[in-house]
Amino acid sequence: MSLIVQKFGGSSVRDAARLKNVARIVADTYEAGNDVVVVVSAQGDTTDNLIAMASEVAAKPSRREMDVLMSTGEQISAALLTMTLNEMGFPAKSLTGWQAGFLTDSNHRSARIRRISKERLENELGKKNIAVVTGFQGINRYDDITTLGRGGSDTSAVALAAALGAARCQIFTDVDGVYTADPRLVKTARKLSEITYDEMLELATLGAQVLHNRSVEMAKRYNVEIEVLSSLERKPGTIVKEVVKVEKMMITGVAKDDKVARIALVGLPDKPGVAFKVFSLLASRRVNVDIILQSIGRDNTKDITFTVADSDKQIAIDALTELSPSLGIKEIVADDMISKVSIVGAGMESNPGVAAKMFEALFDANINIHMISTSEIKISVLIDKELGSKAVTAIHNAFEV
Amino acid sequence: MSLIVQKFGGSSVRDAARLKNVARIVADTYEAGNDVVVVVSAQGDTTDNLIAMASEVAAKPSRREMDVLMSTGEQISAALLTMTLNEMGFPAKSLTGWQAGFLTDSNHRSARIRRISKERLENELGKKNIAVVTGFQGINRYDDITTLGRGGSDTSAVALAAALGAARCQIFTDVDGVYTADPRLVKTARKLSEITYDEMLELATLGAQVLHNRSVEMAKRYNVEIEVLSSLERKPGTIVKEVVKVEKMMITGVAKDDKVARIALVGLPDKPGVAFKVFSLLASRRVNVDIILQSIGRDNTKDITFTVADSDKQIAIDALTELSPSLGIKEIVADDMISKVSIVGAGMESNPGVAAKMFEALFDANINIHMISTSEIKISVLIDKELGSKAVTAIHNAFEV
Repeated sequence: MSLIVQKFGGSSVRDAARLKNVARIVADTYEAGNDVVVVVSAQGDTTDNLIAMASEVAAKPSRREMDVLMSTGEQISAALLTMTLNEMGFPAKSLTGWQAGFLTDSNHRSARIRRISKERLENELGKKNIAVVTGFQGINRYDDITTLGRGGSDTSAVALAAALGAARCQIFTDVDGVYTADPRLVKTARKLSEITYDEMLELATLGAQVLHNRSVEMAKRYNVEIEVLSSLERKPGTIVKEVVKVEKMMITGVAKDDKVARIALVGLPDKPGVAFKVFSLLASRRVNVDIILQSIGRDNTKDITFTVADSDKQIAIDALTELSPSLGIKEIVADDMISKVSIVGAGMESNPGVAAKMFEALFDANINIHMISTSEIKISVLIDKELGSKAVTAIHNAFEV
Repeated sequence: MSLIVQKFGGSSVRDAARLKNVARIVADTYEAGNDVVVVVSAQGDTTDNLIAMASEVAAKPSRREMDVLMSTGEQISAALLTMTLNEMGFPAKSLTGWQAGFLTDSNHRSARIRRISKERLENELGKKNIAVVTGFQGINRYDDITTLGRGGSDTSAVALAAALGAARCQIFTDVDGVYTADPRLVKTARKLSEITYDEMLELATLGAQVLHNRSVEMAKRYNVEIEVLSSLERKPGTIVKEVVKVEKMMITGVAKDDKVARIALVGLPDKPGVAFKVFSLLASRRVNVDIILQSIGRDNTKDITFTVADSDKQIAIDALTELSPSLGIKEIVADDMISKVSIVGAGMESNPGVAAKMFEALFDANINIHMISTSEIKISVLIDKELGSKAVTAIHNAFEV
């Protein structure tokens, strides 16, 4: 008998038919003799509908109240899934964020989990109940409702698996695992049976969109084995863990991220503290910066180029425009017609020539590279957005992953 | 400075425009220097929508999970109203049932409030925050979510007013007060400025539908002054309290209830314990019995006739059919084509001839009476359903209320 945590996303629970399908998966896991903790997201469009309701009454809805509003979405899913299980004759109880013991900080709309008080959960499991927990939410130390922000339900599931010492955390999505490239773009893309946390982290941040990096980081820290699999097809998915079987591959996958913007600050004075001021300003506005390149300019100036999510582009430009007189920025150039294409693989470190091979593939496909960034297990390039899919296919074919 | 509790029903908060209207009422009360606690119901059709969702996944949804599901309705209203107030610049915080300290028994879907832990509420009021509380809900001692059932939000409001020692509990509805008869039926119906708890209780149980009797009973017990008024028109409503100014009226109002069924048990053996068995059986099936008449039959038998809500008719018949062999019931006759028409008034006791005057009015209108029941401040008659409105008008005119 093991303890299994199973997380189901919004599309997996979007209507009565999908809820019954999910209940069957949960019931089978329970009938196989396991203790089961289920984590659910809000149904399909619920989150969007709630946001629309808020925008009708307030131009800038208070963050505390948005959390109160949004947290109803998972509560509805949890109640409906539990009813479905009860109707099928299985002992199940729904638990909201506070009932399941999720204690977070007070950063409304993007709270971090501080700890999980697991008494109630262990009590329900001890009584052989299936616990159906609302993902994405908790309470702070003042008993106010908080939500975890993007990727919150995955993070809830991994945190529960860690706290309860679960044998595995299964993340059910509408894809059946992690692929060497997006199967919609690359016909020869192959599903991976295993992948390391670090590779998954690079793929998540690069737009593979299977798991949010917060949840993978937490899984790595607490050594929680994750399985990514489909809620619609009953077959094994991809296991994410610390060490995987060595395969004869230089790279694990190719990923593309179209939601990226490049911002160049031209003509900065070449003196200490400039980069610090730029990026601490962006951090204070909650803009996440990805790649940063600094080049030497002319006449005692330098240029700093960096990428941000395209949704943050305007916030970044507005902030930097304020700062430009005091910093002496001559020009701010922004471009969001770009794609970031990356290759990821833990085997990269011991295989020289990986970068050269990637650049050769792009050259052969006549694709110009605007910017390059590398880490131990990742190489990213920025290219024109309309060439993104072509680039992914070219690289995937070159490496024969 | 006083503390005012204001309760707004589902139609008062049904959309963004209504929410803004309610926020203005609350804001005006706050700006006049009062502490304000607001209690909200779920928006318009939310409750029906949630019930429909449940019925898609379960033929008989578990009561515990229905409470988890239903309680999201008020949470959405509370968050939206609080956002609206925040957007207008007012300090407000939403509080769910558990956050506001509502502790109930464990009777899911029709829980009773045991006590209110008012620390959090007093803390918010101490910080000059407007507290927007979800009506209809609480938690039991196991920290499970419960709901209060019919009339729950009114009861929540009165309970809060009692616990916090509020100067007044304002119940905002879509009518502007309590009338001497239904203004849609009787053109000469008049709004009452004041009414006693007992009169209001009789009117509530008789189908006047302005306030649920649970809330009025609680208001009477804790001496909470209620005002019933409209959320759309800014004018005084009707005050419900212990002693009202004496007006020169024999009766306070005329009410009609169409949702009633009469059940007659014919040919019962005339021996002790028969009535006990009948009505304890009905109580065990949660059927509320209203009027009971027992007549002497023939040949050592008797007949028992009683009324129930028409929604309970079939449950009552099924239960009694099971029991009929052991009790020796010869026949069960049911009829729901009837109306109960009643007059209510605390002045009735000191005015002989009230009943006679009512019967005369009905006789003059050529309306046959099937059954009569009286209490200290109420006289009810059962008549044919299609004559209900005619009867109300005839009686109202006869008493010139």
